[in-house]
Amino acid sequence: MTSERRTRLRELGIAPGRLPPGEDNALTDVPGVAVGHRTLHRGAPDDEPCLRTGASVIDPAVDRDVYENPVTGATSVLNGYGKSVGLPQVDELGEIETPIGLTNTLDVWSVADAVAGRALERDASVTSVNPVVGECNDGVLNDIRGRHVSAAHVEDAFEAATESNTQEGCVGAGAGTTGFGWKAGIGTASRRVADHTVGALVLTNTGKPEDLRIDGLHVDRYVEASTEASSAGGSIMMLVGTDAALSSRQLGRVVERTELGLGRVGGIAHHGSGDFAIGFANDRGETFSDGELTPLFRAAIEATEEAIYNSLTRAETTVGIDGTTVEALPLDAVRRAVEARGPSNP
Amino acid sequence: MTSERRTRLRELGIAPGRLPPGEDNALTDVPGVAVGHRTLHRGAPDDEPCLRTGASVIDPAVDRDVYENPVTGATSVLNGYGKSVGLPQVDELGEIETPIGLTNTLDVWSVADAVAGRALERDASVTSVNPVVGECNDGVLNDIRGRHVSAAHVEDAFEAATESNTQEGCVGAGAGTTGFGWKAGIGTASRRVADHTVGALVLTNTGKPEDLRIDGLHVDRYVEASTEASSAGGSIMMLVGTDAALSSRQLGRVVERTELGLGRVGGIAHHGSGDFAIGFANDRGETFSDGELTPLFRAAIEATEEAIYNSLTRAETTVGIDGTTVEALPLDAVRRAVEARGPSNP
Amino acid sequence: MTSERRTRLRELGIAPGRLPPGEDNALTDVPGVAVGHRTLHRGAPDDEPCLRTGASVIDPAVDRDVYENPVTGATSVLNGYGKSVGLPQVDELGEIETPIGLTNTLDVWSVADAVAGRALERDASVTSVNPVVGECNDGVLNDIRGRHVSAAHVEDAFEAATESNTQEGCVGAGAGTTGFGWKAGIGTASRRVADHTVGALVLTNTGKPEDLRIDGLHVDRYVEASTEASSAGGSIMMLVGTDAALSSRQLGRVVERTELGLGRVGGIAHHGSGDFAIGFANDRGETFSDGELTPLFRAAIEATEEAIYNSLTRAETTVGIDGTTVEALPLDAVRRAVEARGPSNP
Amino acid sequence: MTSERRTRLRELGIAPGRLPPGEDNALTDVPGVAVGHRTLHRGAPDDEPCLRTGASVIDPAVDRDVYENPVTGATSVLNGYGKSVGLPQVDELGEIETPIGLTNTLDVWSVADAVAGRALERDASVTSVNPVVGECNDGVLNDIRGRHVSAAHVEDAFEAATESNTQEGCVGAGAGTTGFGWKAGIGTASRRVADHTVGALVLTNTGKPEDLRIDGLHVDRYVEASTEASSAGGSIMMLVGTDAALSSRQLGRVVERTELGLGRVGGIAHHGSGDFAIGFANDRGETFSDGELTPLFRAAIEATEEAIYNSLTRAETTVGIDGTTVEALPLDAVRRAVEARGPSNP
Repeated sequence: MTSERRTRLRELGIAPGRLPPGEDNALTDVPGVAVGHRTLHRGAPDDEPCLRTGASVIDPAVDRDVYENPVTGATSVLNGYGKSVGLPQVDELGEIETPIGLTNTLDVWSVADAVAGRALERDASVTSVNPVVGECNDGVLNDIRGRHVSAAHVEDAFEAATESNTQEGCVGAGAGTTGFGWKAGIGTASRRVADHTVGALVLTNTGKPEDLRIDGLHVDRYVEASTEASSAGGSIMMLVGTDAALSSRQLGRVVERTELGLGRVGGIAHHGSGDFAIGFANDRGETFSDGELTPLFRAAIEATEEAIYNSLTRAETTVGIDGTTVEALPLDAVRRAVEARGPSNP
Repeated sequence: MTSERRTRLRELGIAPGRLPPGEDNALTDVPGVAVGHRTLHRGAPDDEPCLRTGASVIDPAVDRDVYENPVTGATSVLNGYGKSVGLPQVDELGEIETPIGLTNTLDVWSVADAVAGRALERDASVTSVNPVVGECNDGVLNDIRGRHVSAAHVEDAFEAATESNTQEGCVGAGAGTTGFGWKAGIGTASRRVADHTVGALVLTNTGKPEDLRIDGLHVDRYVEASTEASSAGGSIMMLVGTDAALSSRQLGRVVERTELGLGRVGGIAHHGSGDFAIGFANDRGETFSDGELTPLFRAAIEATEEAIYNSLTRAETTVGIDGTTVEALPLDAVRRAVEARGPSNP
Repeated sequence: MTSERRTRLRELGIAPGRLPPGEDNALTDVPGVAVGHRTLHRGAPDDEPCLRTGASVIDPAVDRDVYENPVTGATSVLNGYGKSVGLPQVDELGEIETPIGLTNTLDVWSVADAVAGRALERDASVTSVNPVVGECNDGVLNDIRGRHVSAAHVEDAFEAATESNTQEGCVGAGAGTTGFGWKAGIGTASRRVADHTVGALVLTNTGKPEDLRIDGLHVDRYVEASTEASSAGGSIMMLVGTDAALSSRQLGRVVERTELGLGRVGGIAHHGSGDFAIGFANDRGETFSDGELTPLFRAAIEATEEAIYNSLTRAETTVGIDGTTVEALPLDAVRRAVEARGPSNP
Repeated sequence: MTSERRTRLRELGIAPGRLPPGEDNALTDVPGVAVGHRTLHRGAPDDEPCLRTGASVIDPAVDRDVYENPVTGATSVLNGYGKSVGLPQVDELGEIETPIGLTNTLDVWSVADAVAGRALERDASVTSVNPVVGECNDGVLNDIRGRHVSAAHVEDAFEAATESNTQEGCVGAGAGTTGFGWKAGIGTASRRVADHTVGALVLTNTGKPEDLRIDGLHVDRYVEASTEASSAGGSIMMLVGTDAALSSRQLGRVVERTELGLGRVGGIAHHGSGDFAIGFANDRGETFSDGELTPLFRAAIEATEEAIYNSLTRAETTVGIDGTTVEALPLDAVRRAVEARGPSNP
């Protein structure tokens, strides 16, 4: 089991892609976006219950009542084998009217209920609201059947939300997830395009060790894979936000390209992996022509790719339910492999 | 306010469509299907809370563990302005692995949680499950913000479920809904096609008085519309079940045609009306060629059409929150109009 | 065989729907829209070839180069069993960059080629263009295998195009089509909504006699159906145009509702009937909120409904290939039935 | 300008992916599949016309009349900015009833017409047929406005079709296409999964030099990009075939994952790149459960990835219209880079 310090990918000397990151290289680089996590890491592996789960919230526009003034929204489903809540209305109306939540598979409805309840509390005239919540199955490490995430935990995540949040790895909904055979979790990154920022935040729970490539480096050729990592289930939630004023159709084109970022990492969207992408643009309107979208496509791909890496490099070895251990990706080995190959952008 | 006995459409001498109905002219005519309702009609109009809501459950295959052996499933979204839960996975895998629930808009997540919880209780190995729940907004009559439907109520609906259920109108999720300016609710109907049955069950909460046509009869020409009926919100959930062994793609073609049934009734799927159709086939496999599907298309259209009528003719005048009254459709006037026009199939 | 004068539905005293029609009650009521037909009615029934086909073109914006300045576009496919050309790009970019063509099934590619060729000729810099062409199978009456519609015929249709076109029935692509057991063809209608017009133009080739309801009147109860009409094949193309400035997503919501208009007429979208809807808005931009769309939804439904009626009431009995006869809908009988029932809007 | 021998990727010592290829590492490894190309390389760069285009045909089931006994079909559109013909019917019916064609953008309709004409000629009872044809824009090198591909050329491609076809690069529809800044064209590859084969054939016309990664190797770090390659337009057509008996829904899941293969190569699906995937399964029925699909997903991803590489490594430097030159990817430089990095699977 590794005890090394967990770092972001760039600290290993790897800077994937062409575009410059935003100030924090995080989704919160998009002006007006806040992110908060409530981690439930509680109980020893043999305790009942053993919690390795949590809730994460993404507020797409902290400066306004998003119920009154929704953000533009779009979704793309690569593998619909998942329980994400709220997508049909986003597709129909092209907007998102609540913060976005993330949690484990079996708490997705109670988190949706909590996000909705929050809108009800804030505005006594609300009689309809569409919470958007994604999920990954963390049952390998977490007592998922216990359904431990409560409305109070969601509220905690909101209270913890900040506009400069680079927490990654085993935080919030990422406490118990697994990716490419290693401990994974939350990851984030961003890219600058002219005057705009495109940010990504992912919750990684997909992939086999032999699939992982980091900026082209076939990791399994250098690092022996953890053997305890379960092969069942899986999923990845890919959130993309921007301050570019796009129509929902244009945003949909951006969001769909997150799948190419997953492709770069080596993901195969296996049968049991529910792979969803959700996007928002918090400047309403349509000030781009489609011919100008390509840099935003690239930004979404690069930010998603790097966010996935960070979800691995920041996650720590975790012992969970029934003593199952999922190892963290050994950064020293990755660093040595990178050095042997040479830096990313010579 | 009318106090006349509420009847199904056929008792008024109107038999829409060409195909013969099943024995009960109900979704439960499909072998193996059970339906149950838990109605929450509680509190006087000025009481707090005033409940005019409920939960309905549709078990698509009572003779088996639907989690272990799912039914074929498909969905069609005409107007995605709604909060239905569980659709993406149905679209991806072409199957439904739980009973289907119906409730009000703001209880859809807690009902989903309850349906999921039931699967967890029945099978200790379940760590992932996809409840499918539809909703309509009954806030015109119901204290919808109170979110009163609990897991216990869902359990009550399951306990009440029977394989021969013709309850309609203000039952279950239909306790507080409104349609075409009149009190509406649950309606059901079925059609026989060769050796197979196609059944429909709808939860009606859409339409304006001037749109309603009953088997071609423009109702507003004969009956002055209720003036108190709110024009806000709306929705319709259209469920279709069959024992014909269809692939999910074929079932999807059947399900999409429920919209033509709604068209016959005069529905316009106004902006605020979330119009969803969900279908299941409880005999797995694919024993039809597409060239044989047309009778099933017709059956789904006719059953949906008649189910909507029944959701109106069986519903009773209801006084709800803040004393709002939604009148029942006056059957005597409809009957007189039908007699003036002559019977449906001379 | 009837020899009565063919009229539009309103001349029979039937005015379906609630909204007022535009000046000509035609798609060309939408400012800037022109429609032209080239009819190929050539050869006696026993001649080889016997042509009962043609081409129709709809120019969505006569006042500008639509390739340089496309109109907003959207599509909705109810039954994709058809060969329509150009839809994926409309869905991706939300715009249409050529006039829209209509023809028979087996000439759809040559008409697409002709429409593309026209764009190439007009602008020497064009190296890519996306013609949009719909089709119906007129093989019951036409020597469809002969593929007789040429680029010259398409050019003729463009030359014949006018901004005030109420030609209906057996014109253009409607020369050989059949609907609800009767001779059908092109039909058109429009509705006014505040300052805007929504127009529809349909090419009808779907439905059985027993399905037809005209403004609620079950036609088969009053008129014995033509027996020679083939039951095979079918399709309906529903075009909707407007000068309301809608986003492509909003336009898509309008276009999808044409299916409810088809439902009012009694259509069932049988297996062999490829049912496509294509819409355009020739004022770019997005000046409506979604909450204001409902009147446009209603307008599209009503215009589509009435256009289908007109495609029947204007079509004339036609004898085609191998002497097959498809009778025109007998208007006297419909008129008598309407009088017995009473006028539409008393 | 390079004059080196063009080879497939594996001859450079690079074997991407985990699964073993079929015998020829080509789409034609799928039993019953034939591929044929008709290349139009005619005229010197300053001649009028200068042709660098062609037609390719893929017969999915040579041993039967595919019109009478269609193959299962599915499509996935990543970027619908393209003119592909025949997709809506494939989506509706889940089958393909003709060979699939590939050509340039402006000949897609005449090739569709030719493929349809072939079905008409073979069977005098055919009055409806749905040709499926994809396209890429080869206008950088080809006189695309001349629309030079005729029905006779399509017939030539059919005559040239064989069941063991590893032609790649500047053949058929690939004569004039460009990818990742280099000359591209047709590429093919295959993978074995248990008793089944998954094959891919791509027509590459997308990507910028700086995006290209070959099995993780960032090519632009080792090879200076060709400067003449145009940045406009683009597209990629990805065809996937298999002899695994899948339902159309299952096949759709396989087909959608080709996008992850494109992601591995570094594609970003830029605005002007119409990226379409079309799949077929020539053994009808459904003998897999969804839980068994993951190896087929991986096979489709790997075969698509390698087919794209081959479309580059086999293509030769081409001088086209107006003397534009697009260089072939320099294999020696790639080989040296690979050797420096070490072999793929140590």
